[in-house]
Amino acid sequence: MLNLFWADEAGLPANDRGLAYGDGLFETIRMEGRQGVLLSRHINRLVRDAARLGITVSGSELKSVCARAADRLSGGGDGAGWILKLTLTRGGGGRGYRPDSAMVPNLMVSGTSPPPQTDPAGVVADFSRVPLTVNPLFAGIKSLNRLEQVMAARELDDRLFEVIMSNSAGHLVEGTRTNLLVKVRDRWVTPPGASLAVAGIMREWVLERLRERGEHVEERPLTTDDILGPDCRGLFLLNSVLGVVPVRTLADHDLPVETGLATIFNPFELLE
Amino acid sequence: MLNLFWADEAGLPANDRGLAYGDGLFETIRMEGRQGVLLSRHINRLVRDAARLGITVSGSELKSVCARAADRLSGGGDGAGWILKLTLTRGGGGRGYRPDSAMVPNLMVSGTSPPPQTDPAGVVADFSRVPLTVNPLFAGIKSLNRLEQVMAARELDDRLFEVIMSNSAGHLVEGTRTNLLVKVRDRWVTPPGASLAVAGIMREWVLERLRERGEHVEERPLTTDDILGPDCRGLFLLNSVLGVVPVRTLADHDLPVETGLATIFNPFELLE
Repeated sequence: MLNLFWADEAGLPANDRGLAYGDGLFETIRMEGRQGVLLSRHINRLVRDAARLGITVSGSELKSVCARAADRLSGGGDGAGWILKLTLTRGGGGRGYRPDSAMVPNLMVSGTSPPPQTDPAGVVADFSRVPLTVNPLFAGIKSLNRLEQVMAARELDDRLFEVIMSNSAGHLVEGTRTNLLVKVRDRWVTPPGASLAVAGIMREWVLERLRERGEHVEERPLTTDDILGPDCRGLFLLNSVLGVVPVRTLADHDLPVETGLATIFNPFELLE
Repeated sequence: MLNLFWADEAGLPANDRGLAYGDGLFETIRMEGRQGVLLSRHINRLVRDAARLGITVSGSELKSVCARAADRLSGGGDGAGWILKLTLTRGGGGRGYRPDSAMVPNLMVSGTSPPPQTDPAGVVADFSRVPLTVNPLFAGIKSLNRLEQVMAARELDDRLFEVIMSNSAGHLVEGTRTNLLVKVRDRWVTPPGASLAVAGIMREWVLERLRERGEHVEERPLTTDDILGPDCRGLFLLNSVLGVVPVRTLADHDLPVETGLATIFNPFELLE
């Protein structure tokens, strides 16, 4: 059971806990007409991570909302790309921070235009000055508490596509909106799930594909030397709306750009 | 310049960044009729901490909003207690996390009834199982990213007034909605400002009053032993709406309750 709101009609009620405390989660899904890229994975993640916060929502109800959203928001003929955003909150009210167990979640649904395509020759990135802190209880959850990512994104400009954030141990963890994957010699390295602010759908999918192909994948802390040292064969940014984005320049260092990986990811094959 | 919204009319627009990312801050102010307890300190904190997030708002504009809020929301005759809440966000829109420098902040204003008075003989508290993580960049800021406090507040029940959260170093930092002050022998101890999730107005005010009276105040990391050890003379929870609240039981341990401190704080003297 949930209260459904369409963003093209109105915002959430004034007492919504998503606004008050960031007490909720969101998903952004790449749509082509009425179909979504890795749609079931997005829905499953939302159900699972909501449960980690004590918010109960059913996958079948979300699925039916996505179908209604496609009717309402996909616009013209099939094949037109757009972004479906689902914002799920614990509901309204409560005594301050303390929620009421009888709360009914609010779901806001919106459709927006897709971001511009990235340059296939690679993008420019830098290191962020904003430290990333991850509460182990919320690791990986795409919650509405994203102030660190906002502050890091203020470092971006039209030339700079992404900044990479480090944790207090000095390990590189993720970009503002992307997970990291590095090829170090013949191995693929990515920071462990438990260290991530957001554990992306595209990361999960690409790691599965790589393992399926028999590639060697290591989930371990990532250092600057992994990327700027002589063994780096490429740095990739993973995002479920943008796909696999190679980085050609990091903090003014040229990186090797291997375009092979981008071909593993073909969004049109992943439509559901 | 800001866009003003009254919560008794409508919520914030669907594209507000407070909901989307917790990209904003809030204040809750204890009002008696048209006057507020430590009102200027609340306004000054909001202006200062908004600036730390790159959100520009003027104190005089906020002051005039508070006066309008008092006209609109204070209800019956003067002397009636209520809570004024100001929720300030960076505004609407942006390209994902990345804000637009031309955004105009949104301010939502609401009035609610005050919480019940606490027992002067002291309240019951426990240790929280939710770890507290504080990004040094946001230390002390009452931002809209409060998911940790929400999850900790789920541990409360009608018997349990507050839970105390610890950081990864194992130091006791603060309650879900209160700062900590402990009397250890003849000294007052409170965790340092740089370690706090929220640096409360009441904490600031009480520390000033204690120092003014020549008391010895130490801002240093707080350990379980400071509170449960033999030298503890009392644990106090500080909150600008609730005042100074003594704890009589912590995790089933009886604590000494010294009621003297509560008399330093008299909200009616602090009205502006």
